[in-house]
Amino acid sequence: MARRTRVLRLATAGPSDTAPLAAAIDKGEVDPATIVAIVGKTEGNGCVNDFTRGYATLALKLLLGDRRVAIVMSGGTEGGLSPHLLVFCREEAQGVANGKRLAIGTGFTRDFKPEEIGRQAQINETAAAVASAMKEAGIASAADVHFVQIKCPLLVAQRVAEADRRGAAVATRDTLKSMALSRAASALGAAVALGEIDRAALSDTDIGANWSLWSGRASASAGIELINHEIVVMGMSPSWSGPLSIDHAVMGDAIDVEPVRAALKRLGLDSAGQLPPAQRGRLVALLGKAEASHDGQLRGHRHTMLDDSDIAATRHARAFVCGALAALVGHAEIYVSGGAEHQGPDGGGPVALIVDRAAS
Amino acid sequence: MARRTRVLRLATAGPSDTAPLAAAIDKGEVDPATIVAIVGKTEGNGCVNDFTRGYATLALKLLLGDRRVAIVMSGGTEGGLSPHLLVFCREEAQGVANGKRLAIGTGFTRDFKPEEIGRQAQINETAAAVASAMKEAGIASAADVHFVQIKCPLLVAQRVAEADRRGAAVATRDTLKSMALSRAASALGAAVALGEIDRAALSDTDIGANWSLWSGRASASAGIELINHEIVVMGMSPSWSGPLSIDHAVMGDAIDVEPVRAALKRLGLDSAGQLPPAQRGRLVALLGKAEASHDGQLRGHRHTMLDDSDIAATRHARAFVCGALAALVGHAEIYVSGGAEHQGPDGGGPVALIVDRAAS
Amino acid sequence: MARRTRVLRLATAGPSDTAPLAAAIDKGEVDPATIVAIVGKTEGNGCVNDFTRGYATLALKLLLGDRRVAIVMSGGTEGGLSPHLLVFCREEAQGVANGKRLAIGTGFTRDFKPEEIGRQAQINETAAAVASAMKEAGIASAADVHFVQIKCPLLVAQRVAEADRRGAAVATRDTLKSMALSRAASALGAAVALGEIDRAALSDTDIGANWSLWSGRASASAGIELINHEIVVMGMSPSWSGPLSIDHAVMGDAIDVEPVRAALKRLGLDSAGQLPPAQRGRLVALLGKAEASHDGQLRGHRHTMLDDSDIAATRHARAFVCGALAALVGHAEIYVSGGAEHQGPDGGGPVALIVDRAAS
Amino acid sequence: MARRTRVLRLATAGPSDTAPLAAAIDKGEVDPATIVAIVGKTEGNGCVNDFTRGYATLALKLLLGDRRVAIVMSGGTEGGLSPHLLVFCREEAQGVANGKRLAIGTGFTRDFKPEEIGRQAQINETAAAVASAMKEAGIASAADVHFVQIKCPLLVAQRVAEADRRGAAVATRDTLKSMALSRAASALGAAVALGEIDRAALSDTDIGANWSLWSGRASASAGIELINHEIVVMGMSPSWSGPLSIDHAVMGDAIDVEPVRAALKRLGLDSAGQLPPAQRGRLVALLGKAEASHDGQLRGHRHTMLDDSDIAATRHARAFVCGALAALVGHAEIYVSGGAEHQGPDGGGPVALIVDRAAS
Repeated sequence: MARRTRVLRLATAGPSDTAPLAAAIDKGEVDPATIVAIVGKTEGNGCVNDFTRGYATLALKLLLGDRRVAIVMSGGTEGGLSPHLLVFCREEAQGVANGKRLAIGTGFTRDFKPEEIGRQAQINETAAAVASAMKEAGIASAADVHFVQIKCPLLVAQRVAEADRRGAAVATRDTLKSMALSRAASALGAAVALGEIDRAALSDTDIGANWSLWSGRASASAGIELINHEIVVMGMSPSWSGPLSIDHAVMGDAIDVEPVRAALKRLGLDSAGQLPPAQRGRLVALLGKAEASHDGQLRGHRHTMLDDSDIAATRHARAFVCGALAALVGHAEIYVSGGAEHQGPDGGGPVALIVDRAAS
Repeated sequence: MARRTRVLRLATAGPSDTAPLAAAIDKGEVDPATIVAIVGKTEGNGCVNDFTRGYATLALKLLLGDRRVAIVMSGGTEGGLSPHLLVFCREEAQGVANGKRLAIGTGFTRDFKPEEIGRQAQINETAAAVASAMKEAGIASAADVHFVQIKCPLLVAQRVAEADRRGAAVATRDTLKSMALSRAASALGAAVALGEIDRAALSDTDIGANWSLWSGRASASAGIELINHEIVVMGMSPSWSGPLSIDHAVMGDAIDVEPVRAALKRLGLDSAGQLPPAQRGRLVALLGKAEASHDGQLRGHRHTMLDDSDIAATRHARAFVCGALAALVGHAEIYVSGGAEHQGPDGGGPVALIVDRAAS
Repeated sequence: MARRTRVLRLATAGPSDTAPLAAAIDKGEVDPATIVAIVGKTEGNGCVNDFTRGYATLALKLLLGDRRVAIVMSGGTEGGLSPHLLVFCREEAQGVANGKRLAIGTGFTRDFKPEEIGRQAQINETAAAVASAMKEAGIASAADVHFVQIKCPLLVAQRVAEADRRGAAVATRDTLKSMALSRAASALGAAVALGEIDRAALSDTDIGANWSLWSGRASASAGIELINHEIVVMGMSPSWSGPLSIDHAVMGDAIDVEPVRAALKRLGLDSAGQLPPAQRGRLVALLGKAEASHDGQLRGHRHTMLDDSDIAATRHARAFVCGALAALVGHAEIYVSGGAEHQGPDGGGPVALIVDRAAS
Repeated sequence: MARRTRVLRLATAGPSDTAPLAAAIDKGEVDPATIVAIVGKTEGNGCVNDFTRGYATLALKLLLGDRRVAIVMSGGTEGGLSPHLLVFCREEAQGVANGKRLAIGTGFTRDFKPEEIGRQAQINETAAAVASAMKEAGIASAADVHFVQIKCPLLVAQRVAEADRRGAAVATRDTLKSMALSRAASALGAAVALGEIDRAALSDTDIGANWSLWSGRASASAGIELINHEIVVMGMSPSWSGPLSIDHAVMGDAIDVEPVRAALKRLGLDSAGQLPPAQRGRLVALLGKAEASHDGQLRGHRHTMLDDSDIAATRHARAFVCGALAALVGHAEIYVSGGAEHQGPDGGGPVALIVDRAAS
C-alpha cells in the first residue's frame, strides 16, 4: 500500500511546549497514530547538563502515550536559531507518485553499556539499525538516503562510576568529550550502512580521531536522556507519494553555503541571493550540522572556538553556522545540531532540505 | 596637500599580539607616524569584565609610543570571527584622484563622569567630536560619511560607588546594561552629527528605549579601558587619493544580507552567491553591528537570546550575524561588534565596506 | 487533633529523579497523602532559562497526582551543592509534645499579571498567603515563624510582549532583573506578614532598591515554571508533636557563619569547629540564601561578582555561601538559594535549621 | 648575611592595577630591588582563554623593569574571592632570629616544547628548579618547605599545530585538559623534590591519572602567558629573620577546614569559630588549592561540577573552597587556585598560612 510523508514544523514556546502539536491533533489536522518521528531543537546548552531534551521528550511522550515514536531532541538554540519541532507522519496514500518522494523509516538499537560509548559496538549497532530503518522506509538503494538523524547517549559521572565498579574501562572520563565520541561512532555507523566507509577498515582508534573518514548524510546528536540510539532515516523512494522531496548537500566548512544553494535549486528553489519570501514557504525543513574545525582555522583565518573555556565550541558553531544558513534561506527556524564528528569533512557538515514541490 | 588612506588588515594571535604590525613597521611597509586609528577585534567576552580590549590597547601603545592614535578595540570573537586589527594610515599623496576616495578623521571627547553615561552629555560630546573628525577628514557633507566608529566607556561597581559618594545618580547600576546605554547615547550623538536625527527632539528617556530613532552609519563599542570617547569617521572625499573606497548598507535584521550584497556591487564586487575567491582580496575591510532584536523575534520566529542567562545576548548576536556576513563575503576575518542600540533598526545594524578598486 | 511534621531529605540523580521518593512511598515509609510541600535544589543555572525546575516539578506531579502540594524547586547547584529534595509531610500524631515542635503550613496566591511582577501587588498577595499558611499551621505568633519559603514567577520576553499588547508597563524588560524584583517583592510581603516591616511605609520604589528593608526569615526563589506564588511557612507550635525543631539565624554577610553556629547550639548541636559526624545526622535540613552584596565589597575587600558577564552573580554567590555553610555543618547537601533581595541585610541572608532532637 | 622576608598584600582594582605597588615604592615603603616574587589572583576565568594573567604580568614588568622576578598570576576570582597581589621581598636583616623564620627562594625552568607538557620532562625540570630554589632560600631540609607555588604553561591550538608540523605527539589536544596535565606534572615534580614521591616510581601514565600520588605542599597554576615554569618556594629557615612564619595543612576534601584551623593554632592564631577581627590582621597570607573530586562525590553526596558544560569545574571549586576558607579566616582576600591535580588528595589540597607573630 502506498504511503506519504507529512512534515509539520511547529514553533515551541519552551522545552515542554506541546500545545501546538496537541492543537493540531485536536483539530484533526494530524492523526497521532501516523506520527513516527519527532526531531526538534530545544533551548538548553546542547552539552552534558542539558535537561531540556529530556524534558521535551517527557512532555511529548505524555502527549503521545505508549506508541513508539523516534524522538530526537537536539539542545542548543544559539544566535537566532528558533526552537521548533519537526513532526514526521507516515500517512496512507491513494497511490504512488510519478517519481520518487520523501520516504521515512525509524530504527532503534539496544541500550549501550558505558564502556561501549565511543567504540565499535556503537558503529555496529547503528549500521544495523540504519539498514533496518531503510528497509522499513522502502528505500532500496543507499544512494536514495539523504539524511540519517541519530540520537545517541553520553557519559555522566555516575555512568562512568558504574563502569568502574565493574572494572570496565570507558573510552573517556571527560563527559563533554563523551558526547563527541558517541556522535563520532554513530556517524561512522551510518557511513558503514550507506556504503560510504568500509566497515573492515575501521577500528576504535579511528573514532573521533581520523577526520578523513566521514559520512555526507549522517547527523548525530548526543543526549543524557537515553541510553540507546533512536534513528530516523530520510530518503527518496518510488513507493511513496505526496508533494515532499528531500535532497542534501555537504558543506566543506562552516560558511560553505553554495552547495546548499545548489541543492535548493535541484529541488526547484532557485535564487541568486537569499531565498525570497515567495519560496521560503516551500522549504519545509532544513537540517544541518555545525562544528568548529579541529585545526583552529576557517579558510586560513584563526578561530577561537576551541580555546574558549566560557562557551563550548559546539555552542559557538551552532550560532555561527545557523547565521550562514539563515542568511541563505531567509529565516532561522532551522535545525542545526552541534558536533559534526565524521559528519561531513572537518569543520563542515551535511545539510538536508525537505521541499514541498506542490506549494505555491 | 593631497592625502590617501591606507588600511592594513592584520591577523593577531592573541590580544597582546602586535608582532604583525611591528614587522610591517620594521620592514618599512608602514610608517608608524602615519597611523591615525586602529580598529580591532579581541577574543574577550565583549562585556563588562573583558580586559582583552585594554590589554590590546596597552600593547599597541607600547609599540606606537606617545602619538595620539584612536584605538577602538571591540571584544568578542564568537563563532568563526577571527581576531584582527584594521590599521588606518593617513599618507601623503601625489595628487587627488578622479572622484572621491576613502577619507578618515579621528575625534576625542573629554572624560565622562559616571552619571553622564547613557545620558545627553554623551550625545552632545559625541556629536561635536564627530563634526570635528569630519572636518579633520575634509568631508564636507554628512552624506559622504559612511561609518562612524566610536569607542565609549561603561560603568563598573567602583565607578557607580564613586558617583554614589558624590550623591550623583547614575543612569543604571547594572554594569552590563551600562554598556548598552553608553552605546545608545553614542550612536544618537553620531546620528545628530550626521543629520539623521534632530537634536532638539531627543531627551534622556529616548536613550536605549526609543528604537525608532537610529543612525544608519554609527557603530559604538563600549569598554572598561577608557572613560572618554575615541571616534573614527570614515567617508568619501574628493580631496583624498588612492585606490580605496567605502560604502555602507543597513541590515534590517540579523540576516538581512541583501543590502550588503548591493553595496558590494556598487563598489564593484558583483556576485550572485558568495563572493568568489578572486573578489575576496579586494574587500579590504567589513565593519558591522549585531544585536538581538528587542521583541524576541526574527522574522516572526522566536529567538532565545534575551532569555539566556548563560551567554550574553551580544555574544549570541555576534556569532550569528558574523555567520550571515561571512557566508556572503567568504571569510570571517571581519569586524562585527555587538550591541547595536540606535545603530540601524532594532535587530539590524549598519555595515561598512572598504574596497580596493585597483586590486585585481 | 495533634499533628507532627516529618521531613525526608532525598538525594536526586537528576532533575527528573523521583525514584527515591517513589521507593519511600512503595516501601510504605511515607504516605503520599501526608505530603504537603516539597522544597528542592535542581542542577540548572537558577536563572531565567532554567527549565530544570519545571522539569522536576512535572516529574513530581506525575508521581503525586492531583493533590495540591506546594512545590518550590530552586535551580543552581554550584560548587559542591548537592541536588536533593526536602519532602515535608504532615502526619497525625498521638498527642502534643512537651513544648513547641516544627509546624508547617502552605499558601498559594492567585496568578500574577506580568505588570504586577516586582510591584506592590506581589507584596499584598504574599502577605495574605503567608498569614493563611500560618493559620493552617496553627502558628499564632509571628515570632514562632522561622522560615517562609516562597516560589515566585519571573518575566520572559513573551510575557513582556503580552503586557505590551495590552499597553501595560512592566517593572523591567530585563528578564534576569525581573527575577530579582519578583524575589524582592515576595520577601517584603513575608516581612509584612511577620510584622518585620510596616506595610504602610512601603511603595513600589522600595522594591529591589531600599536594602535597609529586610526580613530575617523570608526566602524567595523565582522560576519560569509558575505564575503565582507557592509558599511554605515553617515555625514552632505547641499544637504539633514529633522530634523536629526549627530555628533560624541571619547572616550579616556571605561568610557570617557564627550566628548559624549559635542557632545550631540552641538546637542542641554544639560544636566549636565543624559539626562532627555524630551530630551531622541530627541536622535534618539547612535552608539558606546567598547573594552578592550590592556595594561590590565583602568586609572591605572588593568582590567581582557584579561585574562578571560570564557567570551570573547569583551563581557565584550560591557556590561561595554554600562553601561557607558546608564548612560549618560538614556536608553540602543543603538548600542554598540565590538572590536574597530584602532577605537578610544586603549581602547576607536568613538561614533555617531543622534538627531532630531525638536522633542520637 | 641574614635575610628577612617581607610580604605585602595589595588589593587590585583590575588586572593591570599596579598603582598600589607603585605607591608603596614611591613612598619608600618597599625597595623594588628587594622584590623576588609576586603571586596574585586576577579576575579572568582561570582557564585557557584567560588573558588577565598575562595582562597583569605585563603591567608588573612595566613597573619593575628588567630585574628577574618570579610572577605567578592565577586567574579566577569566583565567589567573594578578592583580587590581590602578594609581593614577596627579600630584605637584609640585622641578625638571625631566635628560631626559624619564613624563607623564600625562586626557580625558573627552561622553556618547554608543546609535546613535553603533561609528561615527565616537566617533572624533571620542576624537581631541579625546586631544589635550586630551596638552595637559594637556604632551606636545607625538605621538611622545612611548606609551599611550592608553580606557574606552568598550557597548550593552545597554535602550539598543538606547531607540534603537529614537527610530527611530535602532544599529550592531549584538548586545551583545557592540557592545563590539568601541566599542573599535574608540575605538582609531581615538586613532590619528587620534597621527597614525597620516589621519582623512579613515576611514569607518564601516572600524570593526571593516579590520584594516589600527591604532594602536601605543591600548588600549580597553568597559564597562557609563559612557556617555562616560574617557581616560588616558601619555607622556614634558621638563617632568616623577621616576624613572619609559615605553616601548612592538607585539606582532605573541599570543606575539610579543621586541619587549617589546627595550622593556624600552631602559628598562634587560636580560634574556636571564625578567626576574630583582632587575629585577622596577623594572618598575612593564605594560599590554597581547590578542585572538584574526580568521583563526583563530596562526603557521599553527589556534586555536579564535572557535568557542568556552562561553568568549568575549576571555577565552581574555587568559589566553593574560597567560601569554606573565608568562613574560617573571616575574609576572602585569600589566594585560592583551581585544579589541584596531585596537590593534596583527590578533591582536597594543600593550604599555606603566613602569619606575622609580632603583629598585635
